[in-house]
Amino acid sequence: MIPDKQTIIEAHERIKSYISHTPVMTSQSINERVGCSVFFKCENFQKVGAFKARGAMNAALSLTTEERAKGIATHSSGNHAQAIARAAKILGTKSYIVMPRTAPEIKKRGVKGYGGEIFECEPTLQAREATLAEVISKTGATEIHPFNNYDVIAGQATAAKELFEEVGQLDVIMTPVGGGGLLSGTALGAKYFSPNTIVIAGEPAGSDDAYRSLKSGKIEQAQSNTIADGLLTSLGDKTFPIIQQNVKEIITVTDDQIIDALRLVWERMKIIIEPSCAVPLAALLKEKERFAGKRVGIILSGGNVDLERVLKLMVGI
Amino acid sequence: MIPDKQTIIEAHERIKSYISHTPVMTSQSINERVGCSVFFKCENFQKVGAFKARGAMNAALSLTTEERAKGIATHSSGNHAQAIARAAKILGTKSYIVMPRTAPEIKKRGVKGYGGEIFECEPTLQAREATLAEVISKTGATEIHPFNNYDVIAGQATAAKELFEEVGQLDVIMTPVGGGGLLSGTALGAKYFSPNTIVIAGEPAGSDDAYRSLKSGKIEQAQSNTIADGLLTSLGDKTFPIIQQNVKEIITVTDDQIIDALRLVWERMKIIIEPSCAVPLAALLKEKERFAGKRVGIILSGGNVDLERVLKLMVGI
Repeated sequence: MIPDKQTIIEAHERIKSYISHTPVMTSQSINERVGCSVFFKCENFQKVGAFKARGAMNAALSLTTEERAKGIATHSSGNHAQAIARAAKILGTKSYIVMPRTAPEIKKRGVKGYGGEIFECEPTLQAREATLAEVISKTGATEIHPFNNYDVIAGQATAAKELFEEVGQLDVIMTPVGGGGLLSGTALGAKYFSPNTIVIAGEPAGSDDAYRSLKSGKIEQAQSNTIADGLLTSLGDKTFPIIQQNVKEIITVTDDQIIDALRLVWERMKIIIEPSCAVPLAALLKEKERFAGKRVGIILSGGNVDLERVLKLMVGI
Repeated sequence: MIPDKQTIIEAHERIKSYISHTPVMTSQSINERVGCSVFFKCENFQKVGAFKARGAMNAALSLTTEERAKGIATHSSGNHAQAIARAAKILGTKSYIVMPRTAPEIKKRGVKGYGGEIFECEPTLQAREATLAEVISKTGATEIHPFNNYDVIAGQATAAKELFEEVGQLDVIMTPVGGGGLLSGTALGAKYFSPNTIVIAGEPAGSDDAYRSLKSGKIEQAQSNTIADGLLTSLGDKTFPIIQQNVKEIITVTDDQIIDALRLVWERMKIIIEPSCAVPLAALLKEKERFAGKRVGIILSGGNVDLERVLKLMVGI
């Protein structure tokens, strides 16, 4: 069932002591550049470096004692993998992470650092799902999907809840959209805790499946022609309806626009965010006339980067 | 006269509304790596991206009405230049900044953005001093030296004051050392507001003049064989005696150690600091056995970086 207000309040209570209450930052020079007041909720400072710690923790804490004892499993090459491994470690249980063999070594080390067990597979969705099914049938672990899971969605909603609690009324709240976990959670957060706030997502033009899904009314397949490598997934059957009902608009941006926004945050705010995380600010910059004078919240989704790769993107080599 | 406790309290009151009360950050993974509790005072989030905003603002606000009307001047290619231009803009007066013609375009743009007037000269100390003298004789402006000025030193002391006020008793406080403005200010801050705290500086081995000055008992000349380009100046006759009396030790570090510390902060804390700013953490890492279990404060001095240059440092090209 789609999380209601009470469910999100309970999720927040449940995870509070296991996550960081991340700071909200503002930047005078970015405000001047966009012509509105932007409140950045810094989930790049969250545990495991991304908002994913919230949803994974909420889902893991919501398991029955029997489920918990058998461990948790997922397939992910990104921040969710670390978030699951960390949640399992905190709960004193096992985690089984299916990762494509091409995943960066640093991501594997992150998972192993939390005691997660990695199962490598070919880098296709089919191979990932098959390997995960095999792991689950062998271990009895419970799958915690990165986004298509109501407990995960309720957990992600807590970032927006904290933002509203700290800065009050906002005209607009923005997130990136990949599978839609953060976006659907944020949309529910706005609906329950700041109902006059409009929800808008930014999406890479090179993987604009959510944009097309809203137009066509059905879940469209993602492409992968973008540097925003955290946003290459299609929406799920749980996230899509929430987004359909509660998200006003998706604004697409080019990779060049993403890099400009990324650089702006690094240079002006002195904080490290990952390319996917820069997408909503890129969308705001692209359409800034429409936001003039407004109070805009942006969830900065994460800060896990391969420094060499991102620096090369920024300097154009 | 060396600033006393009351002078620093008054400096803090004077500048409070013009500077940021910067956050103190901690990192569990860095604490585990060094084996002690480190409290980072994030002056990289300060106005103009560095602690220099404090000293410049205090010195500018301490001028007489007559002095203020004629403007302020300095020679600097770094963060102090922007800090002076910003202070002048706030006070509604002029700033005259002497810069070597080789200074990066981004630094010049920063100064011009605050309405500062730039006078270019050859990149030698002699040319800088001669050009500054000429500018002052023409305009009647007052020089505000980057570090060898008691009002500047009192302003820099307020960062340590804020840190003690926020986190309480520390065993050690650390800063980098270039001309010694931040170090002498921090040493006075510790003396007056946390007298049991030991003050230690980190210095690049490739410009270890402060280290040698403490050994020899006289001001030694700086070299410039380091990537920490904010720390290439020798101590001044006002900063040196304060450091001699109040700083326990200077630990020198290699450029490789600085890059390791820089990378650690970028990757683990998700914040951007400049190479000079990583020097005290590099010193702590180098001698970590001695700090085991202690509570250590580090003033993160600034976050103004040339991303291209940092990329080259990190990938070793």
